[in-house]
Amino acid sequence: MAQKTSIPKGTRDFSSTEVAQRNYIFNVIKQSFEKYGFQPIETPSFENSSTLMGKYGEEGDRLIFKILNSGDYLAKADEVSLKEKNSNALTKSISEKALRYDLTVPFARYVVQHRNEIEFPFKRYQMQPVWRADRPQKGRFREFYQCDADVVGSTSLWQEVEFVQLYDDIFTKLGLKETIIKLNNRKILSGIAEVIGASDKLIDFTVALDKLDKIGKEGVVKEMLGKGITEEAIKKVEPLLELQGNNQSMLAELKVILKDSDQGLQGVSELEFVIDKINELELNTSNLKLDVTLARGLNYYTGAIFEVEAAQVKMGSIGGGGRYDDLTGIFGLKNMSGIGISFGLDRIYLVLEELGLFKKVELPKPKVLFINFGENEALYCLKTIKKLRENEVKSELYPDKAKLKKQMNYANKRDIDYVVLVGESELKEQNFTLKNMKSGEQITCSYEEMLKTVKNS
Amino acid sequence: MAQKTSIPKGTRDFSSTEVAQRNYIFNVIKQSFEKYGFQPIETPSFENSSTLMGKYGEEGDRLIFKILNSGDYLAKADEVSLKEKNSNALTKSISEKALRYDLTVPFARYVVQHRNEIEFPFKRYQMQPVWRADRPQKGRFREFYQCDADVVGSTSLWQEVEFVQLYDDIFTKLGLKETIIKLNNRKILSGIAEVIGASDKLIDFTVALDKLDKIGKEGVVKEMLGKGITEEAIKKVEPLLELQGNNQSMLAELKVILKDSDQGLQGVSELEFVIDKINELELNTSNLKLDVTLARGLNYYTGAIFEVEAAQVKMGSIGGGGRYDDLTGIFGLKNMSGIGISFGLDRIYLVLEELGLFKKVELPKPKVLFINFGENEALYCLKTIKKLRENEVKSELYPDKAKLKKQMNYANKRDIDYVVLVGESELKEQNFTLKNMKSGEQITCSYEEMLKTVKNS
Repeated sequence: MAQKTSIPKGTRDFSSTEVAQRNYIFNVIKQSFEKYGFQPIETPSFENSSTLMGKYGEEGDRLIFKILNSGDYLAKADEVSLKEKNSNALTKSISEKALRYDLTVPFARYVVQHRNEIEFPFKRYQMQPVWRADRPQKGRFREFYQCDADVVGSTSLWQEVEFVQLYDDIFTKLGLKETIIKLNNRKILSGIAEVIGASDKLIDFTVALDKLDKIGKEGVVKEMLGKGITEEAIKKVEPLLELQGNNQSMLAELKVILKDSDQGLQGVSELEFVIDKINELELNTSNLKLDVTLARGLNYYTGAIFEVEAAQVKMGSIGGGGRYDDLTGIFGLKNMSGIGISFGLDRIYLVLEELGLFKKVELPKPKVLFINFGENEALYCLKTIKKLRENEVKSELYPDKAKLKKQMNYANKRDIDYVVLVGESELKEQNFTLKNMKSGEQITCSYEEMLKTVKNS
Repeated sequence: MAQKTSIPKGTRDFSSTEVAQRNYIFNVIKQSFEKYGFQPIETPSFENSSTLMGKYGEEGDRLIFKILNSGDYLAKADEVSLKEKNSNALTKSISEKALRYDLTVPFARYVVQHRNEIEFPFKRYQMQPVWRADRPQKGRFREFYQCDADVVGSTSLWQEVEFVQLYDDIFTKLGLKETIIKLNNRKILSGIAEVIGASDKLIDFTVALDKLDKIGKEGVVKEMLGKGITEEAIKKVEPLLELQGNNQSMLAELKVILKDSDQGLQGVSELEFVIDKINELELNTSNLKLDVTLARGLNYYTGAIFEVEAAQVKMGSIGGGGRYDDLTGIFGLKNMSGIGISFGLDRIYLVLEELGLFKKVELPKPKVLFINFGENEALYCLKTIKKLRENEVKSELYPDKAKLKKQMNYANKRDIDYVVLVGESELKEQNFTLKNMKSGEQITCSYEEMLKTVKNS
């Protein structure tokens, strides 16, 4: 009769230590979000399938978890798909709801649905789990959290500036050093496409360019030629392959390379604004780095593109985002420019763990355990515990009159700081024997002394 | 092309005010849980279907949301069920995962799966959403939160006592008055069944008994007779129909009624322990009330049964729980007694809202808005904002150089306390014009004065 106990692959149980450490990250992010004027919203775990499907490309549609309709779902199933055993075509008729795939599309839906209650520019943040039927691997799960902050309803570049500061603030607070905030602009990429005279080759171009570090200039040129980019085009953008130095000098070179593209120059000027202002405002611990190879998968970015990497640990992107000009258009609200960034909670967790940055996180455990010597003693203890709890001291009574050794062992295993022993004599004298589990020191004291001792430790 | 925006029925979007108010409740519950020595865990949103199915009865199975397998799920679909269009039979072969229906079964699975890492008695709490394909109505949703605290690995009745205190603590902190904590014991119900000589009539009996207030003694007797309970049996338990007075006198009467049932007397003695100890320890604002009609749907309770109702608002149960002796048995871990209680976040929310108890909740909004008069002024503002944020003052720059009226309007709509105006003159003098939006008062001041003013308000 006993069932095997396991959980679906790509999902996780979290122990109390893990919950506390994760909540620590959530709280740092949340506090900074609110300090920057963002307000929280929450959306349902599942949306109507029509809200999600078609928003993430074919691959995305495939990775969305669909919820089977309740009841006799086959009664309304599409006959043809059933007969042909066409899973893909059948889904629509037996599943109306799907689990959230990211926070951005539900946010767009939220903005449109609640537009009359919202004050624009609308600065919202959202920290909720999302689900993807992806192949699990290190740092990639089927259930994971996203923490997003977005502003919609303004095209101001000050927001790009503020998001760079926000990244820096949060990663600084978490104890990371030299975090790399990569910055690019979609208009730079469009400009490059214009210059090489082939916008359909843009992705091939950036993919090849991205390998510069690994395969060198020659390798990159070879790959580009292989992808059908003409020698002439490559020549025009050759300086991109030698782009180096600081952000300022790269900007100067970009101006030359993109001199014939209005789009491209617009991109340069937007990047310049953000980089200049950040230079003026100064970052705490992060480095803002112009990276013209940064494209990110999402097609809806129209301006700035962000991606963040930890410098001390190889973990891939721990954050990303960008500006989009028409996120809500699909839901009928046009001309609503926005920009947003996302924090990958689960990867940040792995980075902090690897760097040992959870040391200061307070673990949820009682501070005081009262040993249970029997009914009368226990009642006396519980009266005391009630007072301690009123004074915000986490404390508990061992529930059973078990052997002392067993109870002390429990206190040790749970790493509890103090144990209180109340036997016949303490009961008579109305006092307490308080044992410091770290030092082993044991004193007999009044309630007031005990409260003072455990409060101050 | 524009899509309709809506969310699945029984689900909700939460505005930032609602999120803040809900988090306030979560925090009160969480802090009390931890003060009582409970540790948080979290489990995945979906479990293997085999973990959940068959644990909540037929009705429960029907209400569990099933997740469609990814990819070509029809390839492995059961042929016979497909041909017969038997939805119920097909599900198993096209869906392997299902959304969490409650927190108790995943908790049992967790305890068994992690039993070697756990220190028993294990006091855990868990606050996560659950999903049920129930018919939505007031206070009943398809996605809602449960907040559970359980102890497994001990049969001590002190835990029953602590859970009553915990209910009282939390509802007191939330500002509720005279909350009714109903208490019963499954053994009392078994005893009654024994006495009336028909354990299969127990549910009919308690359902009828529960209507005493509405239909009176005669009505109850009539209903019992109608359900096939003999006149002789009714005679034996007739005193139950006249049970009144305080807990103590009810206990005395129960002892007489159940004198021939060992189980029943055991139940009375357990109730007596809890009631006596609570009398000694005293509750803050709640009332503990013995209620022999309390059965609750869940079949796994074996000892104490709890149910909580708000006294000031009609909302049904806002909490419940009880002792179970074999929760983990189904997963292969025998003899693991436990007891747990649950808080219904969504109903508690409705109760607090109706009573206007959210007044003290701090809403997530910036304290200071800096008006944007152009690039130079904005940069100066952002430098100041950076310093304010380092001092934990929530502040933001209006992103666009919009008309002053529009920016002031935004500050008003978002109920922001202070507006800072930096124009040419302030820029020259390196000072600030600070406007208190409540009083309308406006002063010109240094950074230090501004910080002091907004910090102290």
